[in-house]
Amino acid sequence: MTTPTHSPLPSDRQLPTPLGVAVIGYAFMGKAHSNAWRNVASFFDVPAFEQKVLVGRDATQVAAAAAKYGWAESATDWRTVIERDDIHIIDICAPGWMHAEIAVAALAAGKHVLVEKPLANTIAEAELMTAAAAKARARGVQSMIGFNYRRVPALALARELIAEGRLGTVRHVRAAYLQDWLSDAESPMTWRLRKETAGSGALGDIASHAIDQVLFLLGDAVTEVSGRLHTFVTNRPGPSGTEEVTVDDAAWATLSLASGAIASVEVSRVATGQKNSLKLEIYGDKGTILFDLESLNELGFLDATVPVREQGFRRILVNEPEHPYLEAWWPQGHIIGWEQTFTHQVRDFLTAIATGEAPSPSFEEGLNVQHILAAVEESAAAKSSLIQLHTATEGA
Amino acid sequence: MTTPTHSPLPSDRQLPTPLGVAVIGYAFMGKAHSNAWRNVASFFDVPAFEQKVLVGRDATQVAAAAAKYGWAESATDWRTVIERDDIHIIDICAPGWMHAEIAVAALAAGKHVLVEKPLANTIAEAELMTAAAAKARARGVQSMIGFNYRRVPALALARELIAEGRLGTVRHVRAAYLQDWLSDAESPMTWRLRKETAGSGALGDIASHAIDQVLFLLGDAVTEVSGRLHTFVTNRPGPSGTEEVTVDDAAWATLSLASGAIASVEVSRVATGQKNSLKLEIYGDKGTILFDLESLNELGFLDATVPVREQGFRRILVNEPEHPYLEAWWPQGHIIGWEQTFTHQVRDFLTAIATGEAPSPSFEEGLNVQHILAAVEESAAAKSSLIQLHTATEGA
Amino acid sequence: MTTPTHSPLPSDRQLPTPLGVAVIGYAFMGKAHSNAWRNVASFFDVPAFEQKVLVGRDATQVAAAAAKYGWAESATDWRTVIERDDIHIIDICAPGWMHAEIAVAALAAGKHVLVEKPLANTIAEAELMTAAAAKARARGVQSMIGFNYRRVPALALARELIAEGRLGTVRHVRAAYLQDWLSDAESPMTWRLRKETAGSGALGDIASHAIDQVLFLLGDAVTEVSGRLHTFVTNRPGPSGTEEVTVDDAAWATLSLASGAIASVEVSRVATGQKNSLKLEIYGDKGTILFDLESLNELGFLDATVPVREQGFRRILVNEPEHPYLEAWWPQGHIIGWEQTFTHQVRDFLTAIATGEAPSPSFEEGLNVQHILAAVEESAAAKSSLIQLHTATEGA
Amino acid sequence: MTTPTHSPLPSDRQLPTPLGVAVIGYAFMGKAHSNAWRNVASFFDVPAFEQKVLVGRDATQVAAAAAKYGWAESATDWRTVIERDDIHIIDICAPGWMHAEIAVAALAAGKHVLVEKPLANTIAEAELMTAAAAKARARGVQSMIGFNYRRVPALALARELIAEGRLGTVRHVRAAYLQDWLSDAESPMTWRLRKETAGSGALGDIASHAIDQVLFLLGDAVTEVSGRLHTFVTNRPGPSGTEEVTVDDAAWATLSLASGAIASVEVSRVATGQKNSLKLEIYGDKGTILFDLESLNELGFLDATVPVREQGFRRILVNEPEHPYLEAWWPQGHIIGWEQTFTHQVRDFLTAIATGEAPSPSFEEGLNVQHILAAVEESAAAKSSLIQLHTATEGA
Repeated sequence: MTTPTHSPLPSDRQLPTPLGVAVIGYAFMGKAHSNAWRNVASFFDVPAFEQKVLVGRDATQVAAAAAKYGWAESATDWRTVIERDDIHIIDICAPGWMHAEIAVAALAAGKHVLVEKPLANTIAEAELMTAAAAKARARGVQSMIGFNYRRVPALALARELIAEGRLGTVRHVRAAYLQDWLSDAESPMTWRLRKETAGSGALGDIASHAIDQVLFLLGDAVTEVSGRLHTFVTNRPGPSGTEEVTVDDAAWATLSLASGAIASVEVSRVATGQKNSLKLEIYGDKGTILFDLESLNELGFLDATVPVREQGFRRILVNEPEHPYLEAWWPQGHIIGWEQTFTHQVRDFLTAIATGEAPSPSFEEGLNVQHILAAVEESAAAKSSLIQLHTATEGA
Repeated sequence: MTTPTHSPLPSDRQLPTPLGVAVIGYAFMGKAHSNAWRNVASFFDVPAFEQKVLVGRDATQVAAAAAKYGWAESATDWRTVIERDDIHIIDICAPGWMHAEIAVAALAAGKHVLVEKPLANTIAEAELMTAAAAKARARGVQSMIGFNYRRVPALALARELIAEGRLGTVRHVRAAYLQDWLSDAESPMTWRLRKETAGSGALGDIASHAIDQVLFLLGDAVTEVSGRLHTFVTNRPGPSGTEEVTVDDAAWATLSLASGAIASVEVSRVATGQKNSLKLEIYGDKGTILFDLESLNELGFLDATVPVREQGFRRILVNEPEHPYLEAWWPQGHIIGWEQTFTHQVRDFLTAIATGEAPSPSFEEGLNVQHILAAVEESAAAKSSLIQLHTATEGA
Repeated sequence: MTTPTHSPLPSDRQLPTPLGVAVIGYAFMGKAHSNAWRNVASFFDVPAFEQKVLVGRDATQVAAAAAKYGWAESATDWRTVIERDDIHIIDICAPGWMHAEIAVAALAAGKHVLVEKPLANTIAEAELMTAAAAKARARGVQSMIGFNYRRVPALALARELIAEGRLGTVRHVRAAYLQDWLSDAESPMTWRLRKETAGSGALGDIASHAIDQVLFLLGDAVTEVSGRLHTFVTNRPGPSGTEEVTVDDAAWATLSLASGAIASVEVSRVATGQKNSLKLEIYGDKGTILFDLESLNELGFLDATVPVREQGFRRILVNEPEHPYLEAWWPQGHIIGWEQTFTHQVRDFLTAIATGEAPSPSFEEGLNVQHILAAVEESAAAKSSLIQLHTATEGA
Repeated sequence: MTTPTHSPLPSDRQLPTPLGVAVIGYAFMGKAHSNAWRNVASFFDVPAFEQKVLVGRDATQVAAAAAKYGWAESATDWRTVIERDDIHIIDICAPGWMHAEIAVAALAAGKHVLVEKPLANTIAEAELMTAAAAKARARGVQSMIGFNYRRVPALALARELIAEGRLGTVRHVRAAYLQDWLSDAESPMTWRLRKETAGSGALGDIASHAIDQVLFLLGDAVTEVSGRLHTFVTNRPGPSGTEEVTVDDAAWATLSLASGAIASVEVSRVATGQKNSLKLEIYGDKGTILFDLESLNELGFLDATVPVREQGFRRILVNEPEHPYLEAWWPQGHIIGWEQTFTHQVRDFLTAIATGEAPSPSFEEGLNVQHILAAVEESAAAKSSLIQLHTATEGA
């Protein structure tokens, strides 16, 4: 990851001024990404850009969304948009099955591409995208996948502390992502609960974040996986009667890491009372890190090198100018929201475009996560037997 | 307070379209208010408005700030700005000693006025402003003081629960606002630490918030006050040698309330480790509310009417569509930041302009808080003796 | 489990008066059990008994321990002690490899037997003991295994709430038992780290507690297991050079339960900063339970049947007369210590002897846990493949 | 305070062997003190003693209590007991109005005296006792007042850290003792709610503990007091109709300390949901201490001398052999209960008898707390005006 700094950007690179930005998709992620584009320049030094176009399928709705979210125009045909000379950045928030086609075309057209996770719905598509990104990078065209939790200041701090050796040798990691929006067995069927439209369930949606964090925080690689998937609510009411849920609503895995560490991963959409709780616990021989996304401005840290008499888990309020990204915000103790992880993501992406340094996480890192998810599925199908990963890629 | 709703606004009122907005001041509060204006329409249904002018004394700096924070223009003379026909709203973030002059002039010019707290540096000025606001309101011109913490969703929820009787009879309140930015005795002298420029210290700056919350949450009035002020660090390094600190860095008070309840208030700028911790504890005979601004998305609630066997303090993550203001934001569990309290404030102010209903807190409520602060000072000067307040005004 | 009540015991049973008690073993568990015997009658109505004999191998040391812990005598030969007519209860705190021989002999001699967990070091021994217990029970002789955490009031309350249906259908459980006493790679080799003396490592020692709680709380049975074992520190300094550690210091498992629920279990002795943290999270469709042994007087509970607006995790301070076992102790809010779980255990064991009702957990339940642990080892040896359990026994 | 050590006691002092102990009173405190006497020698090296006599007014009840709590005999006449040659220690748990008479007589008879707080119901009585204690001390007879919270390991650790300078200069303290057993306005009248029998309400009962902690932790003295008392529930049902409550159920005070620090004290018996919550916050320029009696095995500590980037409140689980009193107990992470604060108190009292060193807190320290409480009452009667204390005594 580019270490967040606020030093002036190098002036010698020739950037189009302003950079024209188009976002494709205006639902949940489109709203969150738009918010980031609308605000990033008010807090960070970034190259000049303009919120040019918001793209969506329904002309009326996308026009309304564009007006609401600060875009100069709206459009319904992404193909036309990526051909425009005044558009330099394509930010893809469309459904997963559209990622590959748009991204490959945009990269071919020389546009920098930011794509929401998951990279694609299939490994084949993800590999196509990764190849296209590599080719584009050779021409100075940047690409990045939106694992936005890498931009939570507390997690960026955690990564720094781990990289500095403050945990010593990491032995094991407990990663869990717990939600409860499917706890109610009567909540209705949606496209997210069908394998053909969603690819997978909790595994692809939230285990992907948890696994990316393991890789990001440790800078490690997965070598072996044992997994288990389960669907607790197998039928849900649809518009014309009961329908079968064909994706998992919970998953479990253990991951062997190249360093010798072991990570457990557990995710659920039926963990009643847990709203959006990505919990991370990283145990090293010199210290421990704790994190919970529901309190994302805080980091738990235990330094086992201080005298035993005064050891204890610290709650660090990650809200000081000394902390990653925070110098740009408010005075100490004035916490920031979940939405600003996207602001930081756009800041880092723009910085990469300005400096020419490849941004992280790359499409390759996204593909790597998908290989791991696929291995979890493979293991689950094989009665949880350990599966080797042959093409482990480093986390960052 | 206007109950936050997202129902369509009444269309029969004649509003200038769009409303033109000017913010005066571009430091900390100017940045925070600008952020609110830049984002409010992306989340809430509000009347159409434009970010017209940012006003400040330094032409170069205010021009840069205007560009950064999304304003169409900048200006250095607030007098000219309030005369402009295309400006309908004046949002005052200038230093306290300027509030009265600007607000009175703006109201006289028929502009709706939002003013940062404290209302003014002296009671005389605050009374002038309150009188001007009353006169303006008769002509349909709105005014409001920026006690933004009334717009923390968790506190808005707390007020609802209390108003619904969920705490029963409130007996006592513990309010504390603890910060630590002055803990270091070597941190330098500033204008905020001189009585002539700042008016008062922790008392005016943060006890004002704590006291406003007591009034807001309980809908109650203060009848009697005992107070104490102290300056722990009495000298600080100035540019040309040691200077005397002439305001308090901590204060204590007990407040008698008209209802019979008693509130304790304690504030400090030397509470090491407490960054921005406004803590509220409200004890009723049927339940209790707890809150800490450092975890502003959470509300503690104990319902003493459930069986003893299962009573306990709940941590409510105030982040559901059912909660005040939250329907506009993200899915459950995706927490919002401190900065959005200003977004909600602007939303409520604009709604008041649209509906014609007087917004709250009014200048009168701001003046009321200043009377209470003055009584604390008076009591402190009189060896903490109880001081009667004769003109108690209700909280909301 | 016998529901804790404090009603007078039935007077019609003929009990020896007083019952004579002998404890075998005077190390950590001997100290904890002695403490329970010394105090139980000061808090609970139990049949009359006497602390007769403490048994240990070293005559001098056991005599000193007996004097310190309140025993009338000490002895070195357990065989003689179990033959004494004035001894009616044998409480076995000796090392695991001695359990079977002592327990079988004591039961044959008609003594009621309480045995520390694990039941035995091998399944064969555990089966012998279970058979002996069944035979003894037919003659009115009682036996019990010391899973003392069943007697934590908060966990007894949790079981009640679950049995009452307050969680609805339990979907999944997260159980972890985390300690850190082996974090330091330089801490020396002990008999606990050799397979031949200890049987297993973290698995047998602490996963046994975690698994027993899953069975106890849910009243469920395990049908299938996937597991993994790991030794992070493979060599440790011994008295004459480095020695190999031959047991696990961490373990992971998923358990399928007969009800359809799934439990994850994770244990570690190298979880830096976690001192004695048995964490339990039980997710049902109507509510959730949270627990941490480091705060054993507290229970987390979320009731998902109250309106969403006021849902949240409650911290119940399990310290009211309405709570299990608590009527005997102190006024509300005066918390009890870990040591009192043994006091409650002895109270329940004595009550069972008085009433003739079979105490729980039985030796069979202890054997059942050992079958599950064995299946975890078997799965770990088979690359984590799922292993069927054929003889699942209910938790209670 | 005697620093807890477990080194062998000096053998050269001539102590009666065994020391004979009598406890006077068998209600709540008698039960708690008996528990301490019954257990202290099982954990700590203390001089030999015997639980000789439990004294109470009702012969039948005290005989039953004596049997239950481990006393060899019971008696109804304390005068006879203090004359017995085989009794060397008198532990007074009788009501406050009996303290002076018993203590003075026992000291005169050459018995070491431990007395429950408050020292007495009136200052005159407390002064008599203090004089008697001074005279007795000259003859080698020891006396101590039972502020048992000085023996909470976390608070003993806090005192050590403060004494070592880890907080730097202490600026202010927030002390609160919150309970809720009087929240229900229908809970009946008792002798504790009448001034003539109880002396005072929450002030004497729990503010005394809070104030003693301020003195103990800081080793400081009170010079000036402002106070306020209130009775929220002024009438309660008695056996023959409504009766008037004549003591406070809540109190507030600020205390000026000789060091220049200021402490706020707030106590309540109507703080719904707070069961037994003595909360302490001590703010120094180099660090901060936090404590809550409901989690008495934990200490919050912030070290402001570490880099800002990693500062945060630590939760120290005060449960390691390195911590005060803990070496005697269980392995790390196995928490102890509230009742063991009395075990530690008896251990320290016996150690003082063995070593001849005066134990702390002395009767003088108890008298000092009563002077402070009296000043709070005086201030409350004088509209909270600051009251000077002329005879400030150091905390320890």
